[in-house]
Amino acid sequence: MENLGTEMYSLMKKLFPICRSITGDGVRKTLKILQEEINLEIHEVPTGTQVFDWTIPKEWNINDAYVKNSQGEKVIDFKKSNLHVLNYSTPINKKMQLEELKKNLHTIPEHPNWIPYLTSYYKENWGFCLSHNKYLQLTEDTYEVVIDSTLNDGHLTYGELFVKGNSQEEILFSCYVCHPSMCNDNLSGVVLLTALAKMIINKSKEGNLRYSYRFLFIPETIGAITWLARNEEKMDLIKAGLVATCAGDPGIVHYKKSRIGEALIDRAVQKVLTDSEKSHKVIDFFPSGSDERQFCSPGFNLPMGSLMRSPYGKYFPEYHTSADNLEFVQAKFLADSQQVYEQVVYTLEHNKTYVNLNPKCEPQLGKRGLYNQLGGQRNKIDHMAIMWVLNMSDGTNSLLEISLKANIKFIEVKLAADALIKCNLLKENVEA
Amino acid sequence: MENLGTEMYSLMKKLFPICRSITGDGVRKTLKILQEEINLEIHEVPTGTQVFDWTIPKEWNINDAYVKNSQGEKVIDFKKSNLHVLNYSTPINKKMQLEELKKNLHTIPEHPNWIPYLTSYYKENWGFCLSHNKYLQLTEDTYEVVIDSTLNDGHLTYGELFVKGNSQEEILFSCYVCHPSMCNDNLSGVVLLTALAKMIINKSKEGNLRYSYRFLFIPETIGAITWLARNEEKMDLIKAGLVATCAGDPGIVHYKKSRIGEALIDRAVQKVLTDSEKSHKVIDFFPSGSDERQFCSPGFNLPMGSLMRSPYGKYFPEYHTSADNLEFVQAKFLADSQQVYEQVVYTLEHNKTYVNLNPKCEPQLGKRGLYNQLGGQRNKIDHMAIMWVLNMSDGTNSLLEISLKANIKFIEVKLAADALIKCNLLKENVEA
Amino acid sequence: MENLGTEMYSLMKKLFPICRSITGDGVRKTLKILQEEINLEIHEVPTGTQVFDWTIPKEWNINDAYVKNSQGEKVIDFKKSNLHVLNYSTPINKKMQLEELKKNLHTIPEHPNWIPYLTSYYKENWGFCLSHNKYLQLTEDTYEVVIDSTLNDGHLTYGELFVKGNSQEEILFSCYVCHPSMCNDNLSGVVLLTALAKMIINKSKEGNLRYSYRFLFIPETIGAITWLARNEEKMDLIKAGLVATCAGDPGIVHYKKSRIGEALIDRAVQKVLTDSEKSHKVIDFFPSGSDERQFCSPGFNLPMGSLMRSPYGKYFPEYHTSADNLEFVQAKFLADSQQVYEQVVYTLEHNKTYVNLNPKCEPQLGKRGLYNQLGGQRNKIDHMAIMWVLNMSDGTNSLLEISLKANIKFIEVKLAADALIKCNLLKENVEA
Repeated sequence: MENLGTEMYSLMKKLFPICRSITGDGVRKTLKILQEEINLEIHEVPTGTQVFDWTIPKEWNINDAYVKNSQGEKVIDFKKSNLHVLNYSTPINKKMQLEELKKNLHTIPEHPNWIPYLTSYYKENWGFCLSHNKYLQLTEDTYEVVIDSTLNDGHLTYGELFVKGNSQEEILFSCYVCHPSMCNDNLSGVVLLTALAKMIINKSKEGNLRYSYRFLFIPETIGAITWLARNEEKMDLIKAGLVATCAGDPGIVHYKKSRIGEALIDRAVQKVLTDSEKSHKVIDFFPSGSDERQFCSPGFNLPMGSLMRSPYGKYFPEYHTSADNLEFVQAKFLADSQQVYEQVVYTLEHNKTYVNLNPKCEPQLGKRGLYNQLGGQRNKIDHMAIMWVLNMSDGTNSLLEISLKANIKFIEVKLAADALIKCNLLKENVEA
Repeated sequence: MENLGTEMYSLMKKLFPICRSITGDGVRKTLKILQEEINLEIHEVPTGTQVFDWTIPKEWNINDAYVKNSQGEKVIDFKKSNLHVLNYSTPINKKMQLEELKKNLHTIPEHPNWIPYLTSYYKENWGFCLSHNKYLQLTEDTYEVVIDSTLNDGHLTYGELFVKGNSQEEILFSCYVCHPSMCNDNLSGVVLLTALAKMIINKSKEGNLRYSYRFLFIPETIGAITWLARNEEKMDLIKAGLVATCAGDPGIVHYKKSRIGEALIDRAVQKVLTDSEKSHKVIDFFPSGSDERQFCSPGFNLPMGSLMRSPYGKYFPEYHTSADNLEFVQAKFLADSQQVYEQVVYTLEHNKTYVNLNPKCEPQLGKRGLYNQLGGQRNKIDHMAIMWVLNMSDGTNSLLEISLKANIKFIEVKLAADALIKCNLLKENVEA
Repeated sequence: MENLGTEMYSLMKKLFPICRSITGDGVRKTLKILQEEINLEIHEVPTGTQVFDWTIPKEWNINDAYVKNSQGEKVIDFKKSNLHVLNYSTPINKKMQLEELKKNLHTIPEHPNWIPYLTSYYKENWGFCLSHNKYLQLTEDTYEVVIDSTLNDGHLTYGELFVKGNSQEEILFSCYVCHPSMCNDNLSGVVLLTALAKMIINKSKEGNLRYSYRFLFIPETIGAITWLARNEEKMDLIKAGLVATCAGDPGIVHYKKSRIGEALIDRAVQKVLTDSEKSHKVIDFFPSGSDERQFCSPGFNLPMGSLMRSPYGKYFPEYHTSADNLEFVQAKFLADSQQVYEQVVYTLEHNKTYVNLNPKCEPQLGKRGLYNQLGGQRNKIDHMAIMWVLNMSDGTNSLLEISLKANIKFIEVKLAADALIKCNLLKENVEA
């Protein structure tokens, strides 16, 4: 697990410097690096394509940007941090006085050393973001303002990975690749899903993957809308899903429920978190946030939640600033989040519904070696888990429901079911 | 609003001196005064008419009543307070000693300065009520006891106002006009519904009244039973209703739920009270109290609650005494109650169910000027309200349900819906 | 009630010395003593009979058992306490050194003066149980180890009593008669059900027993399984039931719910306990414990809970030791438990569903003498109970549901219903 955290962190470090946006070469470069890890398919959707109520915007690319004072010193320099440029800024090359320049400068007075992250995707505009301290140091002068960007017809780019399981039914994981140099929001989600995908690919090679899995690496909002518009026919197959974000900060794990609220994914994640015995928090669905807004829009209402550490917004002040950096996110928190995701997958894979084949009275466990078995503790089955699985397996209660009702860890209930299956006391209810 | 309170209080002052009962000229005089405000229809139902299990009783009227001592001094005088007479007392004109007189005297020892209010509608009886202090001052003497009342065949009288809206479906408001000189119970309810009716009439003149509204000014119990017996065919049209009582005291607002418990009226009133941000209390239905006992009897089970300030009974000691007077009730509390009633009407009128016309993913709010609109704050729409209305409007959730789920004020949700309708993003689901 | 407690305690004293097990003469002797009280039918099921997944084991009987030291002193003596022998021990007659003997000795170090109660029904074995203090006094020596028991083909014995009521639908009470000299677990259950059966028999003689009642006095687990296997066709008739155990200790009453959780028996017992105004505790069903494990197995899922004082297991340290004796259990606690059972029966017998015959508005109670009736307090009916019964009796709410909703004692609601029936205001909804 330590290793896994370190691997994820290394990948994040490699992705950090790239200036990403909702379109452009930053996304392409990012996806190409991910392709070294997993077999991502890359899609290019042309500018102007209609996706539901939206239109794929012009593609944005940027070479350089700066503000130079009359001494020729760069007082703001894109090369030092790509957050300095208002994301999607139109090109500019103009001299202006401080007063005029200030109209397009953005700072965070409460955090005077941090550069804010701001965007203007759908309203043409230009601007610079800088620390409030730097801003206060700007003197009356004539400044040379240069943004060497392009905004032309091009494409929206996204990555997709499909891993085939035994069933056509699929689990959907989504993260966004449109944010420039910030770690928690959301390189953490990107590296987490990359690691999770590698694990799933390995399981699929062993041939015992129950569900199919789909991973999306998309620009937030417009990317989710684009993917949904191009894949409407797949919706019925999606049985559960998660939007991965903010997975590397020191905060406790938060789960934001799906719009449905009591979907399989909601029950499963909550059980995983309870079983972890770590403090955590569950939040009801609300229609702002990340791409669950699209996946859970009323026309889709997919059973998708969002599993994170500190939620975006007011939960961590570093959100959408230059302080959301490689120091804020740590390998151990990435690894911890990753484990929660893996356990969610474990729960979904093993959450089957069984029928007790000896439903009238208890079976005699003793003669089957299932009662108070002494000997090696290695494969010891929890006795109460056996009793609960037998008692509740009337064909309607899945293992997850049984573990919730019994207040026993899912893994214990799963092991009990395995032992009972071996003794022919239980069989799967495939119709459930 | 100050004005409205003062108006209601003035009307209450005019009605206060009248000696009302469940039948007789006191009710008629009261309704005639109300006719100066609103276009009440007055109904007269003859003595002996069968109304379900009950029979309209003889009509009671009273001219005067007193107890005179041997010096010719009136020691108890109806002219000073009509509470002095046991309501519905049969006539008497007789001399008697103190001992005999005492058998028909009623006091409240715990509140020695207050005159109790007592009735004997269905068992012929006579009596006087007086303060316990006065009672203690009575000396051995021969008293002349006179009650100049009549109990003859006549009528039960009640008032009714129907205001036609765009729909036949109606909202029913009921109060009782049978109590003599007491303010909170229940002239407060009478003046509140009068003011509410005036407001509704004005709205209907503007042509934008969604529901029809019916206002009842009836004697308690027998009046409600009479109205129900004569209007059985209307029951299916009643979509919500309230019994107005105890609306002018200084206590916090109490809402007693309908028997159904989760009816539209219950949800609406609770949301209005929550949105008011004032402390208040919600009480489950119980089968005693006022006319909700009849409206919510199992054969009708109307969706009617009761909205009041301090509930009748033990919540205020002045209840059913001479201390429930023009000092106990204040204009500002009447106005505050009236506002709650108006907001309930507002909620019912605007609680429609809509369908998101762009249900797949979010619509692009920016291009419609609905996103983070700066500029004048006057018509600023709450962004989260917009998101919730879009997300929940799948044709099953009314605005009230959305506002409850989102924990956003109803008015904000309503304004968000209006803005979305203007942009063709929402339309009413008329079948909901 | 004092008397009843004393009677139960006396019967317990008579049963206490007998060495019972899941088969054998101990059970027969026990049932014969019970036959002096109630007309028990005794069933004998031969060894080898298949009952679902189980087989009736060989019958076990024991004459004597001891461990003698080289001086000829009995250091462990079955005659002093039948707990000294591991229940179902195979015969042995052998000399051995302390070291070898110790492998078959069992103690409770935490309670050094108590003899534990242990069994080995389905794995042939022998052993002695003794106090830890005695164990520590054993010196190196050659011991004569004698268990004069037999384990041969024979029968499993159980007792059954059926009391016919007006309906074929039945209430099932079950207790177990397989434990040797221990009082709370479970002679308390045995004497409680004996007393309850006598009461039910008396009621049946009066001809006004609504339900039929069945009482089982069976060996735990294998007895319940045997009875269920032989009576499968009766299952649909069982409307409620209780497993009686641990009914005589000083602890508060505990109710373990049926697997269904919201069955009639669950509602009834909880209401009885609330009405008792004594502290008590309700526990959700769990699939270990006593014979509710069989009755509530998924193939039967009978509406049966378990009503006890301190639950078996960790709630009382005396559990399954020699300290669960005639001092631990007291007559007054038996009587108190018995009263709870009687009130459960009372509730089931009288929990009918009625229809208000005057459902539209309230009936006029005054003319029927039901309103504020003064006079003798003896048969005073609770006014609010009358109002609730009238209001809720729409044919769907039973008296139990009404009493729960109204938060009024069941008895008050029942008396109110009786009074209303007398006035022809209520009639039973026999189809409910």
